[in-house]
Amino acid sequence: MTKTRIAELKDFYLRELTGDVIPFWLTHGIDRERGGLLDFLDREGRPLSTDKGGWAQGRAAWVFSALCNRLGPREEWMAAAKSCADFTRDKVLAGPGGRAYFELDREGRPLVLRRYLFAEAFAAIGLAEHSVASGDPSYLEAAKRALAVYDRFRGTLPAKIEPTLRPMRGHSDTMLMINVFQILRDADPGNADSYTRRIEERIAELFRYFVKPELKALLETVAPDGGMTEGCEGRCLNPGHAIETSWFLMAEARRSGDEGLLGKAVEILDWSLSRGWDQEYGGLFSFLDVEGRQPAQIEWDMKYWWPHCEAAVACLMAYAATGDRKWERWFETIHDYSFRHFPDRVNGEWFGYLRRDGSVANTVKGNHYKVCFHIPRFMLIVLGLLDELREAAE
Amino acid sequence: MTKTRIAELKDFYLRELTGDVIPFWLTHGIDRERGGLLDFLDREGRPLSTDKGGWAQGRAAWVFSALCNRLGPREEWMAAAKSCADFTRDKVLAGPGGRAYFELDREGRPLVLRRYLFAEAFAAIGLAEHSVASGDPSYLEAAKRALAVYDRFRGTLPAKIEPTLRPMRGHSDTMLMINVFQILRDADPGNADSYTRRIEERIAELFRYFVKPELKALLETVAPDGGMTEGCEGRCLNPGHAIETSWFLMAEARRSGDEGLLGKAVEILDWSLSRGWDQEYGGLFSFLDVEGRQPAQIEWDMKYWWPHCEAAVACLMAYAATGDRKWERWFETIHDYSFRHFPDRVNGEWFGYLRRDGSVANTVKGNHYKVCFHIPRFMLIVLGLLDELREAAE
Repeated sequence: MTKTRIAELKDFYLRELTGDVIPFWLTHGIDRERGGLLDFLDREGRPLSTDKGGWAQGRAAWVFSALCNRLGPREEWMAAAKSCADFTRDKVLAGPGGRAYFELDREGRPLVLRRYLFAEAFAAIGLAEHSVASGDPSYLEAAKRALAVYDRFRGTLPAKIEPTLRPMRGHSDTMLMINVFQILRDADPGNADSYTRRIEERIAELFRYFVKPELKALLETVAPDGGMTEGCEGRCLNPGHAIETSWFLMAEARRSGDEGLLGKAVEILDWSLSRGWDQEYGGLFSFLDVEGRQPAQIEWDMKYWWPHCEAAVACLMAYAATGDRKWERWFETIHDYSFRHFPDRVNGEWFGYLRRDGSVANTVKGNHYKVCFHIPRFMLIVLGLLDELREAAE
Repeated sequence: MTKTRIAELKDFYLRELTGDVIPFWLTHGIDRERGGLLDFLDREGRPLSTDKGGWAQGRAAWVFSALCNRLGPREEWMAAAKSCADFTRDKVLAGPGGRAYFELDREGRPLVLRRYLFAEAFAAIGLAEHSVASGDPSYLEAAKRALAVYDRFRGTLPAKIEPTLRPMRGHSDTMLMINVFQILRDADPGNADSYTRRIEERIAELFRYFVKPELKALLETVAPDGGMTEGCEGRCLNPGHAIETSWFLMAEARRSGDEGLLGKAVEILDWSLSRGWDQEYGGLFSFLDVEGRQPAQIEWDMKYWWPHCEAAVACLMAYAATGDRKWERWFETIHDYSFRHFPDRVNGEWFGYLRRDGSVANTVKGNHYKVCFHIPRFMLIVLGLLDELREAAE
């Protein structure tokens, strides 16, 4: 990548992040009256519901804290970070046994507790990142309590599908925790070795059960021994998810200098883009079938915003790590598709849900899944990688 | 409607039903080895999963039995009806306390029990209709046992959303049970009065809580007193669902001669078509917001098969009941849209999921929701209404 292009991209991403995406959430999302983040927003940023997603609070606490940690503190970012971190600690993590709620009302009273431990994980990363931004170690303690809740409940919650007849393993938990431990490790350097061990365990789990070189695929759901499980669920591929995993692995490989792991991570990216990229209209499919059959999801060919965020990060990271210009080209392809289709230049931020042909299917700016997270995270990481590329070029 | 058109439609629907839709399910769906119906089928009819939906078994038992009851018995229909009815009675209704499973494996071993009582209701209609087709009263007893399970568990299962903070009423249960009691009443004429009373209770509930003439809308979810409830959920409209309710009500009004009820039912149809019909591409939207805001569902503008089935029935029934040619025109519009877009003339049966513009988004022929039910039911009812219109014209 040329120095000119690096500088151009740096300006562009900084402007998009600090001039468009973050102001949208500061203006419309941050709840100045009741604390935390309103996440269910329409195109103009007006709440479609004032109920608050549990995931959104921890994720937004991570974003506003990471902005301060990576770009330097700003008062409004720090205030937003504190509001989301406090709401996470005081309201989201107020479930039975310290569990985190999936949905709360505007005041933070509980509406929905789910049987998955994702809200706990997002609480942990938000609180950990905020402990660094704020310099207040009590947030790290809160993050570690959230992680202890995760550890205590893992494997104890009722399975959706009868586990004696059809036991299954899901990729989500394994992959998410790699990143959670990475963030905790940075916030809690005194215990770095222990987090690294847990990351290594999860990476081993990932390759033992989910990564299938013979199929050139990372499966979402497998039998307990890693074998195929029944039907569409067993054949389901989620290219965006696999790509996200690939950069979690690349980040680990770059830190430890493990060239073997780096190679395997780049391979997962390669498989996922080969299968997942729509040759006809561009963009990444949301779901695929490993045998090429019709995916079960009726929305399988919609282009969601977040796989494109993950793919941009993964391609630029692969380029930074390997120098292979194939990944520079892929980064430019993803970058180009994303900025031609997702941003709403009228009201700010991004649309999240396109039809296969790239037209906007639903104009919501937020819901309990599309929150203040994937877009700013990707932009922050891309900015960091561009700095690295610039330094290497100089 | 002219006698010529009536005759033409009669031939057409008989051919579509007995020459296309039913043969597809007999060939690919009926599980001749393990009993019941395989419902997760791809475009060609090959199983995408051999797991069986609990809803599908009762619904298919209804369809194959109703075919015999309305068009005269055929050996292959009766065998399919018995297979699905037996699977329903012996496998689906084998849950705790007699509850019905939502999903089972091919052998009928339980995979998923949900906290909603829909599978019990579909079991009851399938078994009741099969008692008439088979002349075997033990199926009626099994249907009444399923109904007793429904009665016993109604209101006792844990709510998804915290009911002390956000108590809610859903339209689905009220509307579905009107039809369930109608089918039971026909199968169990000795107790007709008791079913009629229960239908009248549900109709009263419907108008007390869900039907909002001031909004020209039937709401899907309301507060316990029928007031609006928070957010997108409170503003959600499901045109197909409201239209289905309208014909359940019309059927009741025609039986009892209640002109007031008929008028109100036709009004619900009118509101729902006015709001729900896509003026740009044709077809019915899947979800709308009562205030015209962006619906929360990312797939809100997809055209599902079943609302079109329900709308064809409702419009022809409104025409038969009122003689108003507006409803004849609407029937022809729905009929035309449906048969131009949904049938798969290569492999038979219908596609279920179109994009807004009418192109096919997902080619599955079946899943646990799109089963052997809406399409044959609509065709059977249309055939009955055409007979009625022909008699009236003669």
